[in-house]
Amino acid sequence: MADQGTAHELPPPSYDAELTEVRRGTPMGELLRRYWHPVGLVADATNTPRRVRALGEDLILFRDGTGRPGLVHARCCHRGTTLYYGKVDAKGIRCCYHGWLFDVEGHCLDQPCEPEGGRRRETVRQPWYPVQERYGLIFAYMGPPARKPILPRYECLEMMDAGEFVEPDDSSIGGGGPAIIPCNWLQHFENVVDPLHVPILHGVFSGMQFTDAMAAMPSVAFETTEFGVKVRSTRPAGNGQIFKRVTEAVLPTLRVVPNPRVAQFARVESIGWTLPIDDTSFRIYVAGRVKRTGDLGRMRSRFAGKFWGDLTEEEHRDFPGDYESQVGQGPITTHSEEHLVSSDQGIAMLRRLLRRQVRAVAEGRDPVGVSFDPNAPPVVFEASNQIQM
Amino acid sequence: MADQGTAHELPPPSYDAELTEVRRGTPMGELLRRYWHPVGLVADATNTPRRVRALGEDLILFRDGTGRPGLVHARCCHRGTTLYYGKVDAKGIRCCYHGWLFDVEGHCLDQPCEPEGGRRRETVRQPWYPVQERYGLIFAYMGPPARKPILPRYECLEMMDAGEFVEPDDSSIGGGGPAIIPCNWLQHFENVVDPLHVPILHGVFSGMQFTDAMAAMPSVAFETTEFGVKVRSTRPAGNGQIFKRVTEAVLPTLRVVPNPRVAQFARVESIGWTLPIDDTSFRIYVAGRVKRTGDLGRMRSRFAGKFWGDLTEEEHRDFPGDYESQVGQGPITTHSEEHLVSSDQGIAMLRRLLRRQVRAVAEGRDPVGVSFDPNAPPVVFEASNQIQM
Amino acid sequence: MADQGTAHELPPPSYDAELTEVRRGTPMGELLRRYWHPVGLVADATNTPRRVRALGEDLILFRDGTGRPGLVHARCCHRGTTLYYGKVDAKGIRCCYHGWLFDVEGHCLDQPCEPEGGRRRETVRQPWYPVQERYGLIFAYMGPPARKPILPRYECLEMMDAGEFVEPDDSSIGGGGPAIIPCNWLQHFENVVDPLHVPILHGVFSGMQFTDAMAAMPSVAFETTEFGVKVRSTRPAGNGQIFKRVTEAVLPTLRVVPNPRVAQFARVESIGWTLPIDDTSFRIYVAGRVKRTGDLGRMRSRFAGKFWGDLTEEEHRDFPGDYESQVGQGPITTHSEEHLVSSDQGIAMLRRLLRRQVRAVAEGRDPVGVSFDPNAPPVVFEASNQIQM
Repeated sequence: MADQGTAHELPPPSYDAELTEVRRGTPMGELLRRYWHPVGLVADATNTPRRVRALGEDLILFRDGTGRPGLVHARCCHRGTTLYYGKVDAKGIRCCYHGWLFDVEGHCLDQPCEPEGGRRRETVRQPWYPVQERYGLIFAYMGPPARKPILPRYECLEMMDAGEFVEPDDSSIGGGGPAIIPCNWLQHFENVVDPLHVPILHGVFSGMQFTDAMAAMPSVAFETTEFGVKVRSTRPAGNGQIFKRVTEAVLPTLRVVPNPRVAQFARVESIGWTLPIDDTSFRIYVAGRVKRTGDLGRMRSRFAGKFWGDLTEEEHRDFPGDYESQVGQGPITTHSEEHLVSSDQGIAMLRRLLRRQVRAVAEGRDPVGVSFDPNAPPVVFEASNQIQM
Repeated sequence: MADQGTAHELPPPSYDAELTEVRRGTPMGELLRRYWHPVGLVADATNTPRRVRALGEDLILFRDGTGRPGLVHARCCHRGTTLYYGKVDAKGIRCCYHGWLFDVEGHCLDQPCEPEGGRRRETVRQPWYPVQERYGLIFAYMGPPARKPILPRYECLEMMDAGEFVEPDDSSIGGGGPAIIPCNWLQHFENVVDPLHVPILHGVFSGMQFTDAMAAMPSVAFETTEFGVKVRSTRPAGNGQIFKRVTEAVLPTLRVVPNPRVAQFARVESIGWTLPIDDTSFRIYVAGRVKRTGDLGRMRSRFAGKFWGDLTEEEHRDFPGDYESQVGQGPITTHSEEHLVSSDQGIAMLRRLLRRQVRAVAEGRDPVGVSFDPNAPPVVFEASNQIQM
Repeated sequence: MADQGTAHELPPPSYDAELTEVRRGTPMGELLRRYWHPVGLVADATNTPRRVRALGEDLILFRDGTGRPGLVHARCCHRGTTLYYGKVDAKGIRCCYHGWLFDVEGHCLDQPCEPEGGRRRETVRQPWYPVQERYGLIFAYMGPPARKPILPRYECLEMMDAGEFVEPDDSSIGGGGPAIIPCNWLQHFENVVDPLHVPILHGVFSGMQFTDAMAAMPSVAFETTEFGVKVRSTRPAGNGQIFKRVTEAVLPTLRVVPNPRVAQFARVESIGWTLPIDDTSFRIYVAGRVKRTGDLGRMRSRFAGKFWGDLTEEEHRDFPGDYESQVGQGPITTHSEEHLVSSDQGIAMLRRLLRRQVRAVAEGRDPVGVSFDPNAPPVVFEASNQIQM
């Protein structure tokens, strides 16, 4: 009898471009551009130009002498030299090649090689994006100006417990590896609504990376919410108690995940934004309530007692974590070869929700989760670790 | 008078895709997939997953706890994470991400995140390929299941002389360089039926790499056989004796080449399989009759007294060998620019034979050299070094 | 009010292929091939084959035993192995693979694996290009043989002042960085007719790299000449004197630029040829009148007292020069995003002149600046640094 199920009959693999590609003009790229995204720490915007790559675009971040942060297209609008080599002064950033000076909104203030500093300099504009600073992060809006929403506030970062303050982090905590992770952002974002991998990947495979309470296989309920997908996991906690954990994936890219080390039974402490750098890499910015500077950094995972960057190649193989399982899906996973099952319900819900928003934008409507009301109250999440009788 | 023959008039170069490209679905790819190919040493299949790349496909080789070797598609059929990070147990290999367990034929035995380990787990199958172990090598069949031939036996590896045994080697002996060689496999395979390069490349250019008997320009006769191309080279051997050498290129990729160091006048000692890793790299597996472990490795060429890996860049230039001459043709040589002559007759014959088989497969027939008879006798080669009066 | 001028509305960028791409068969590639280009130093052609890449073609430069330099297609016309591994003898270069011997004009003199050294060897020809040696450089003509012009002589390299001789240099003096510069050649060539960047880039940004006389913003007049674009810059020089500087960009790629360190007020000392290696890299060959060997090399720029190769990444950012400003435009700048202004008049003139020549060639005419008269007098340039009352 002939062999069954061999790889010879596999059709050519393909990936779902509508959900994964992020460049300007792509369906998902335009959906993502309807929201604000963190592109750096507040401390990253200084008088030294800094390279930023976000949603496939090369940009330069700086802060002028009056303290205003600016985010401009990397190529000077005059002759294309990168403004990375520019000099920042009180009024803006000046290109190294012919000295054109641009303010944080791209206005050209000086063309020193032209008569009178450029009689028609107001007719050119350096392409720029609006930015706002909040929670220690710099957020940019890269979408159509007429649809710019408010930058949301979040209750979990506004309402402090005693002694708490908000700390930002740009090291891709939660990515399980280096700051820049070489695979498509959606592979990471989907992981947020996949609680069942935890006892396998982070338990059986790596030795328990988190707390013992996370080692048990949970009972899980999935739910599509107003602006994302919510996962309720329930595990027995001894003494007849029940450990309830709620995590949320919130559009466009928010990880609303309570501490997996379950240091406390409490509402979620932090928000992580999954920034697509381009189609095949991403990084994670986090803002969280802490009591000591560096608390977020202390959440970094260890594998066999070591940090990820200290593992040998063999140890990466023997103790795989989030980085290995997600990057191990390839630069962009080939969705045509997947087989989703009932425990992947959260992923299916998230894709459907994203796809509906992609189509809403294509049809001229606003996607979920954007607000144009400057007096909108902070967004409240249910995400938490709780213990119940 | 204007210059003649300048490069300005060269047409754009092209290569012969029908003969060179090896991916699934290409003409040559499908021809190659009608045969068994070595993809590792027997010792490579262990409880540690091992990456294998063959014919442009990424695969994982392992051996389950009962001793059965398995070769599966690298991407888990669930969500695409590579099984390189998997764990092997008695029954098969388990993906690191959600713990799906597959046996060596891709059956899904467990889905631990699903109720009852997956009530419908039998509806998914990890893509796999059948393997067999022989001559210290693991052979895989990557073609259509209904056309799977027997794995051939070879008389030269079955009939031992006194004290001999079969030893495998995966270091690309005969490639003249590293284990993985960065050019198209056909550039190497054609070299087998090109005896006239030996006194030039391996004599004049490198200093004689082989035995003195090989230094003379031979008289050569070429012949298309039932399953390949045979080359008979004749050289004077002193005292009125004649040194006769027969080498064969056998489909799909077999090098049947007696020891060029002519340690003995005898039938061929080894077979080399030229495994196309993808369109632009290959490696060579060898199995040969030896009297001492490591005899095959001791056949590695030296250049100016050094091994290839120890040469400086200048020494590679000054003492070119098989690696330099074949990789020096480019990743895939541009056949449109070639000028074959009478001494290239073996190459022309081999290409015609390959092309006929490509077309046979396209027309639904079997290519030469495959057998479906489990009782077929071992294949006998004429390849040998002989001395005659 | 919605934001104005944000990068969201940028159309997809594009570059001007007609002016930038250099491969055989492209518009600019064919224009460039109507002229002689330096491809090495005279000292580079020896009995050791040397790799040369010019206008996107891989070539081998050598010198036969009679002293004649040869430039041939890298791939042997027999089976495609690179002649980099060839051996040079009295008559030519011999391929390592099958020993075919070619003279400097590609005639096949021997096919040692063929009967009688190849009875039909005269029917094959190794693709080659004519070369000439002058000013310490080897010039090649890579265009249609019937349109081969004379190799021009230049008055500035023919008429010596007392104690002067001509020295060649291949280190890309004037490129501001390494010998091979990773961006399109036109980004560099345009820089020659852009005198206004000097006080900005080389003054304000890098600290004055040149002489104080160059620090002032000049008055500039641009002029399209018979074979290029001429720039006359005028600066006050104290004591009522005027510093006049003339630079010229001459087709196809000549930098005719008097010493920017203004060591003397005199006619131009050197010519630089901008050789396009391929579409995204170039190098500069220079020949100049000097009094001491090494004088050209001593013109290399310093940044903060250091040579370019000794700068840290931060110092490259803080002291950008020609390399940073030109490579910082990208591998090929995206012309669609430029905004040329009045001070870019030289660049606009040069592009128009180049475009007219591209079209002349396409229409079967000769471009400007080629001569077919072996008795043509040397070309005279006005380029100079002068001081006037």
